[in-house]
Amino acid sequence: MNKKIILIDMDGVLADFEGGFLKAWKKKFPHHPHVPLEQRKTFRLLENYPGNLEKEIGSILTAPGFFENLSIIPRGKEAIAKMQALGHEVFICTSPISKYENCVLEKYHWVSKNLGYEWTKRMIVTKDKTLVIGDMLIDDRPEHLGLKKPVWKYVLFDAPFNKHIKTNLRITWKNWEKILNL
Amino acid sequence: MNKKIILIDMDGVLADFEGGFLKAWKKKFPHHPHVPLEQRKTFRLLENYPGNLEKEIGSILTAPGFFENLSIIPRGKEAIAKMQALGHEVFICTSPISKYENCVLEKYHWVSKNLGYEWTKRMIVTKDKTLVIGDMLIDDRPEHLGLKKPVWKYVLFDAPFNKHIKTNLRITWKNWEKILNL
Repeated sequence: MNKKIILIDMDGVLADFEGGFLKAWKKKFPHHPHVPLEQRKTFRLLENYPGNLEKEIGSILTAPGFFENLSIIPRGKEAIAKMQALGHEVFICTSPISKYENCVLEKYHWVSKNLGYEWTKRMIVTKDKTLVIGDMLIDDRPEHLGLKKPVWKYVLFDAPFNKHIKTNLRITWKNWEKILNL
Repeated sequence: MNKKIILIDMDGVLADFEGGFLKAWKKKFPHHPHVPLEQRKTFRLLENYPGNLEKEIGSILTAPGFFENLSIIPRGKEAIAKMQALGHEVFICTSPISKYENCVLEKYHWVSKNLGYEWTKRMIVTKDKTLVIGDMLIDDRPEHLGLKKPVWKYVLFDAPFNKHIKTNLRITWKNWEKILNL
């Protein structure tokens, strides 16, 4: 078999970042508008909300517990376990927000709690994923800008805000096996 | 000019891991033997101490504040600033200890405090540095094992425990400019 290095994004692919944000947003700012995931037009949260709410959005993302308490996206854990069982090398490749204080360590805690401690040893934390080597990156971000032309094949994890991207490699955790044929 | 991606290890290259350990060790365990840096035979701390002290060594490395309070290695900050000023892209490439709890976030704090907040955006945290792309990696570890044959040139940062490695690319923060000729 052809052993592959598979990089897996965290927010929106393993951890329910969007759901966690919406829930916290509606609770903390019930009188502000909110944008349900299916109506999100672009990847960056900020671009989907009125510009004057930037501070409020930041206050959700940087709050202690936000990243640690995100729900797990159904079937994600089983999918990466299956990839490993097939003999591939799976790594969790994640970009922290710039205000790293309550993000970086909580991402490790999240992985330990939701996927198991051993997975924390397979984390690669970087703001520039184009500097990471892999056969593929599974990510919901529409495009990746970085210093290098990526060496990985880009597998788009399906999301409402990336529907405009044309690709044969669009997956969910329901259909990934058929599409990736690992 | 030829713009290079330069990966810089943290412990032993920018942060005085060895000095910080010795100081904490002598303070916490004054009656146990200690091994001065110049007498260290191998890279891994544990291998230089009697086997029955593993738990005590771990207690130093996992203590809150250990990583955050390491001193900065003289001239390191100036060196990486100079590399950036020359037009190169410098990243801090660091491997956390497996007990990540008091290590990962403190490494970010250390970088922010000692090098400046903007450098935290240039951190790449991974246990396997062979998965990172760069033109060179500056590191004091004698050898790098990982999933891939590294794409970077290996620049050894001089340390007592890596003297046995034969290389033309051995630097300190005093002579790096002459040897690397960036």
